[in-house]
Amino acid sequence: MMKRIKLTVAYDGTDYCGWQVQPNGMTVEEILNRELSALTGEEVKVIGASRTDAGVHAEGNVAVFDTETGIPAERIAYALNCRLPEDIVAVKSEEVPGDWHPRYQCSVKTYEYRILNREMPDPVCRRSTVHVSYPLNLGDMRTAAGYLKGEHDFKSFCSPHTEVKDTVRTVHSLEIEKEGDIITVRISGNGFLYNMVRIIVGTLINVGRGACPPEKVKEILEARDRRKAAATAPAKGLVLKHIRYGK
Amino acid sequence: MMKRIKLTVAYDGTDYCGWQVQPNGMTVEEILNRELSALTGEEVKVIGASRTDAGVHAEGNVAVFDTETGIPAERIAYALNCRLPEDIVAVKSEEVPGDWHPRYQCSVKTYEYRILNREMPDPVCRRSTVHVSYPLNLGDMRTAAGYLKGEHDFKSFCSPHTEVKDTVRTVHSLEIEKEGDIITVRISGNGFLYNMVRIIVGTLINVGRGACPPEKVKEILEARDRRKAAATAPAKGLVLKHIRYGK
Repeated sequence: MMKRIKLTVAYDGTDYCGWQVQPNGMTVEEILNRELSALTGEEVKVIGASRTDAGVHAEGNVAVFDTETGIPAERIAYALNCRLPEDIVAVKSEEVPGDWHPRYQCSVKTYEYRILNREMPDPVCRRSTVHVSYPLNLGDMRTAAGYLKGEHDFKSFCSPHTEVKDTVRTVHSLEIEKEGDIITVRISGNGFLYNMVRIIVGTLINVGRGACPPEKVKEILEARDRRKAAATAPAKGLVLKHIRYGK
Repeated sequence: MMKRIKLTVAYDGTDYCGWQVQPNGMTVEEILNRELSALTGEEVKVIGASRTDAGVHAEGNVAVFDTETGIPAERIAYALNCRLPEDIVAVKSEEVPGDWHPRYQCSVKTYEYRILNREMPDPVCRRSTVHVSYPLNLGDMRTAAGYLKGEHDFKSFCSPHTEVKDTVRTVHSLEIEKEGDIITVRISGNGFLYNMVRIIVGTLINVGRGACPPEKVKEILEARDRRKAAATAPAKGLVLKHIRYGK
């Protein structure tokens, strides 16, 4: 009998061309399709919740697929992990209703962006943090972040390489914490535009280094013009932490 | 004029056959010798404080070398970093007296060993943590650790593949902390035998999982027999944090 499986997936995005299948390189989606097909003996195609960019990591991206396999739903993650490369892990598998879709319903996504803020780089965490050698003013970064919370038109923080028309999104929370040399920017929202988190972080770094007064972020937001915001921060600092689904 | 330079070095040990030059693969020492020689135009040979094993990481290993270069001592780290691969970083360079040696004097070394203790692995930190999927009892691990603090003959915790005769060492501190899913074993001492930290951690993991009562660690220590202690824990969880030199 056909059942729909929700898969929670973690990956180190370093060596992948992002989530979505594409002609020019290996992607997380392609690996999942290949290994789920081999595991079930069916032609499986997953549908992902978040099509993360090349180099972006995940602790809890979500995918669904339909299968008639006899493997119990909650065992699929274990069976799949025996086949997956070590940079992709199926964290959880569970059965969901047949009409459950990971994108077309109410959800809150949480991303973290990690910045190593000290003079010298750290080779051990180089794949999952971005190194900023100049000092960053956390107070100014937090003031700037305050303007971005809530419902806004985030057109200034959206890559122009997208066809999305409605650029209004709600940022539920945007926190900046420091522990040791690591600054973590944690952002939750009902959805994010293409490159939105990385453009927000790039802009906050600009504020933190003193290149942009915190108040100016309000203007950047109101301009609805991508050219006003800072450069997109590198992919490797970003991790999709989790996606919470509501009713 | 000849001067002696102390270099503090960080590296991701994943892709190296350890610190020490050897015929069968690339090592951190070999890269440093090669790049310091190219930088100074001299034939540089570094002397390392800690000859870490293949796969072990460092945030603060120490090396010295002698040079007549005109580059100011404290700038050598910056100049060297322009030449080093991204998994090795010169964190600091400074001039020391000509008779200063990184091994033949009073020092305290601190290592950390990181264990991801949850059911599923985490691909993002897979290169610098060891995944233990069964629950670990921290209280028992701490009790066991208590027997190892202080001055002891650590022969049971020393690989037999060494020619060292005196196996007495002092463990100044041995702390076990947990944050989220990560258990960190932090150990400081005046010197460590070959594989000593990894054998201690392997034994503590055995205690934590209930395979060995904490009190038995006292017996293992007293036996002075490597076969009594547990298997050596994997290299990739270990990082040499820093070496502090006294007077």
